[in-house]
Amino acid sequence: MLKPLGDRVVIELIEVEEKTASGLVLPDSAKEKPQEGKVVAVGSGRVLDNGTRVEPEVKVGDTIIFSKYAGTEVKYEGKEYLILRESDILAVL
Amino acid sequence: MLKPLGDRVVIELIEVEEKTASGLVLPDSAKEKPQEGKVVAVGSGRVLDNGTRVEPEVKVGDTIIFSKYAGTEVKYEGKEYLILRESDILAVL
Amino acid sequence: MLKPLGDRVVIELIEVEEKTASGLVLPDSAKEKPQEGKVVAVGSGRVLDNGTRVEPEVKVGDTIIFSKYAGTEVKYEGKEYLILRESDILAVL
Amino acid sequence: MLKPLGDRVVIELIEVEEKTASGLVLPDSAKEKPQEGKVVAVGSGRVLDNGTRVEPEVKVGDTIIFSKYAGTEVKYEGKEYLILRESDILAVL
Amino acid sequence: MLKPLGDRVVIELIEVEEKTASGLVLPDSAKEKPQEGKVVAVGSGRVLDNGTRVEPEVKVGDTIIFSKYAGTEVKYEGKEYLILRESDILAVL
Amino acid sequence: MLKPLGDRVVIELIEVEEKTASGLVLPDSAKEKPQEGKVVAVGSGRVLDNGTRVEPEVKVGDTIIFSKYAGTEVKYEGKEYLILRESDILAVL
Amino acid sequence: MLKPLGDRVVIELIEVEEKTASGLVLPDSAKEKPQEGKVVAVGSGRVLDNGTRVEPEVKVGDTIIFSKYAGTEVKYEGKEYLILRESDILAVL
Repeated sequence: MLKPLGDRVVIELIEVEEKTASGLVLPDSAKEKPQEGKVVAVGSGRVLDNGTRVEPEVKVGDTIIFSKYAGTEVKYEGKEYLILRESDILAVL
Repeated sequence: MLKPLGDRVVIELIEVEEKTASGLVLPDSAKEKPQEGKVVAVGSGRVLDNGTRVEPEVKVGDTIIFSKYAGTEVKYEGKEYLILRESDILAVL
Repeated sequence: MLKPLGDRVVIELIEVEEKTASGLVLPDSAKEKPQEGKVVAVGSGRVLDNGTRVEPEVKVGDTIIFSKYAGTEVKYEGKEYLILRESDILAVL
Repeated sequence: MLKPLGDRVVIELIEVEEKTASGLVLPDSAKEKPQEGKVVAVGSGRVLDNGTRVEPEVKVGDTIIFSKYAGTEVKYEGKEYLILRESDILAVL
Repeated sequence: MLKPLGDRVVIELIEVEEKTASGLVLPDSAKEKPQEGKVVAVGSGRVLDNGTRVEPEVKVGDTIIFSKYAGTEVKYEGKEYLILRESDILAVL
Repeated sequence: MLKPLGDRVVIELIEVEEKTASGLVLPDSAKEKPQEGKVVAVGSGRVLDNGTRVEPEVKVGDTIIFSKYAGTEVKYEGKEYLILRESDILAVL
Repeated sequence: MLKPLGDRVVIELIEVEEKTASGLVLPDSAKEKPQEGKVVAVGSGRVLDNGTRVEPEVKVGDTIIFSKYAGTEVKYEGKEYLILRESDILAVL
């Protein structure tokens, strides 16, 4: 499997349907909207100035939300993944 | 519930009515106006370079004021939340 | 009362009259002019990388001068306040 | 062989064919696409503020993916290489 | 007297006459010209990441030269002062 | 000889001929191309926040490749040199 | 004499004649050319995060070369000086 480096995390994107009764898209806010994903691989964590690594807070199998424009798309063995830094992850669901 | 990462905090927005006798909106200042929210979840805190985590100063249930344009909107189980960094929180009421 | 977070300080603005005999405003310098305020609440101080907090140098009741465009206006229980970072405070009078 | 300094890594580029049945190139995303390479030399690692070096996570022979626009091209003994910083490497395959 | 915070210093400006025989101002360089001042109050110094304060190198009564556009003008008890950071002071005369 | 300060290194430039059979210059990449040089003097290394110096990785006599636009040209005793920071050096040949 | 603060150094500029047989100025490079100076005063050095000062590498009497656009001109007792940061000094001759 992909082994992300440092504080990076590999996720599978989860498509979230924006359901509205009328089918109309109503932009109600100028604020950035996050996206959902499922964690499939976790790096060893970033290295602090004292030489220790910060244990990542997420683990494989977690469903997370992350900043919409974060990360790099990767195609691996025919599937699409996204590689994020853990700092781009907002919360675990 | 949403479990925010690091120094992040999940809040519910509190709408504050701007009442004026005549109903007229009078912008009396060019300075940024903050907004109010109620804390519903708190992360484990940011990691210092010596490897320890800074205990967040806010706790679940606190009413806070924060910088108006801070944070990311999240819809979770039909409700709207905002995910902020603790550094975007100005004060606890 | 408002409880500011980290290195933040809550102040009441002190209006300083610019008296000129003729009533004429004479800009004699392009340099930034500071403003005066009275400290009404002090945060617990910023956290250093070694995990300790820096004790704020100002205390409740101090009259201070601060950078003119610093801070965020807050209305609380009908009164106007300004929330500053301690680093925006230039001196105590 | 080339001996990279600090947190640098020397790689041989691996050309990845973008196969489409019709031969048509379909840009399906505005997100940055990474590239693949094979590690041929690894530096001694970056120096932390405490004076120790961070052991690189990649080793000679690893197949990696990296940010597309990262690195500097080098021609050495008639062959083309790319010198990257380890932080530009996203994952090991 | 004004008590400056942190690494700040209060000075009185010393006007330096630019004497030329003909009274003509001859700009002979595009480089920034510094100004002179007399130190009237010194802060407690900036706080290092290990929690100690750096003892300021200047003391009350020193005549200093500083970067021309540095600092904030303050009027206090009818007199004009300038509040600088110690890092804006170039040298003691 | 020139004694470079800190993490600086003095090099003699090595001109690399770009040979093409037809004499035609074919820009095959938009990526930055590095240059070669020979190290003639090495500084004492940069100082870390713990007060120790980082021993430079290059030594006098090394042939190196470096970022094309890095460094400052110096003419000393009739010869041309380039003063680089060690961080601008990509690899030792 | 002028006593520079921190990592600052006071130098006297050394004018270097650009001699060409024909008197023609031939710009042969777009790279920045440094200037020469003689060190006349040295500060106590910059303070590290652990509270110690870094002993300056240059001493009074050294002839140095420095980045052309660095520093601030100072006129003191009828003579022109330049105040630099030690990091703007490239090498000692």
